[in-house]
Amino acid sequence: MASVSTAEQQRLRVVLVDVRNPLNIGATARAMSNFGFTHLRVVNPYEVAYREARSAMGGASVLQEAEEFKTLAEAVSDCHLVVGTTGARKRELDQPLERLEQSAKKIRTQLAGGRVALIFGSEKFGLSKEDLTYCHSLLRIPTLEGHASMNLGQSVAVCLYELVRDAKVKAMKRVAPGPPVGAIDRLTDLLIQNLRTCGYIKPLTATSMEHKVRRMIRRLDLSAHDAELLTGMLRQMSWKLRPDDAE
Amino acid sequence: MASVSTAEQQRLRVVLVDVRNPLNIGATARAMSNFGFTHLRVVNPYEVAYREARSAMGGASVLQEAEEFKTLAEAVSDCHLVVGTTGARKRELDQPLERLEQSAKKIRTQLAGGRVALIFGSEKFGLSKEDLTYCHSLLRIPTLEGHASMNLGQSVAVCLYELVRDAKVKAMKRVAPGPPVGAIDRLTDLLIQNLRTCGYIKPLTATSMEHKVRRMIRRLDLSAHDAELLTGMLRQMSWKLRPDDAE
Repeated sequence: MASVSTAEQQRLRVVLVDVRNPLNIGATARAMSNFGFTHLRVVNPYEVAYREARSAMGGASVLQEAEEFKTLAEAVSDCHLVVGTTGARKRELDQPLERLEQSAKKIRTQLAGGRVALIFGSEKFGLSKEDLTYCHSLLRIPTLEGHASMNLGQSVAVCLYELVRDAKVKAMKRVAPGPPVGAIDRLTDLLIQNLRTCGYIKPLTATSMEHKVRRMIRRLDLSAHDAELLTGMLRQMSWKLRPDDAE
Repeated sequence: MASVSTAEQQRLRVVLVDVRNPLNIGATARAMSNFGFTHLRVVNPYEVAYREARSAMGGASVLQEAEEFKTLAEAVSDCHLVVGTTGARKRELDQPLERLEQSAKKIRTQLAGGRVALIFGSEKFGLSKEDLTYCHSLLRIPTLEGHASMNLGQSVAVCLYELVRDAKVKAMKRVAPGPPVGAIDRLTDLLIQNLRTCGYIKPLTATSMEHKVRRMIRRLDLSAHDAELLTGMLRQMSWKLRPDDAE
């Protein structure tokens, strides 16, 4: 599935519930800026932390436009899908629990047409039992058993990354074009000449050795710049290898 | 592609170069613990930050076993593939630059047989031109143009998550089994009976309405518990709706 569009990203609400550490509020806003999400909602924050985070640098516009709510119910009332995050694995959950990879697919699908709230609980306790009753489903980041609890800012970044990652992305090629074939041939000929001079290529097996060298040079997949560089080096060596001819 | 195995994860070296902030060293170690990576290497750290991070909580064993190096060359000398991370997009790069999604595929492939170093530069400057010469390739997390610079701890978490994420993961189903068909039928019959009593279902269209109700109940995909709960509610209502029969 392709990644979300900008219009779809505008439909996501990142909701922080009972968060206490200003660094985490700041880190959330920064990750949102990094990945192109804009709407942050904060429920019942520790006021000092919230003010401190707002005055700090990074992700500034996300924080300035953040909305504050007294209750989670109010914060998600205009959303069509509410997904909670949890480190839980075995504890009794009344909602379906999915891995992030799977949950993100549903969130992307829903974002095509409606608002989605992605909820993160407090650093110490996560989401409360009551908070969970507002969630249609829960997601967990695939962390290791026994090391499941992630830093809040890091878990926000991972979730948002999964929403924007593109499964179909192609490798970006080096921008610089390769060397023209003529340059590669000159390089190859110089190398072969040197190898002959120094006795590496022997008359009896010359042809097959020369083919080997030619194939090897092609495998190197040299840039134009590197081909030129290597040619210069080999030319210098050839002068040293055949001092008689050079006179 | 499936995610990496534990043995493969042991072959990754996370390398921090010139890192200054103890919180970032700690956050790196914590993300490594979360996602099952163990080998941290630190190049030329600010000594105070390194000591402070080592004495802090979280990701403790990763930090205790971290190796310290004077130079990046030494830190990656036993690795078969060295991948640098960068927020750069357009600046002149001599290495191939790939998106994380693509680069992670190559890293996973290489981890099947050899050690891979994943390099993160300092908070302020990233990797230096010289650091980059030790990299076979560079990866960038797909952040937004103009908001490319990520928090170090968050970018480590995102990269490690991409390495362990499983593209083929299936939705985890609710563990509790659904209700037996008989329970669904009792529920449906009760609802139909109530709808008749209260005049919602009229004799002329009774059959088609009853079919509608039956299909709707099935669409709800109720758990056994919820089916029982709803049945109880409807039974209670039916007593109130038909006081004469109840006597």
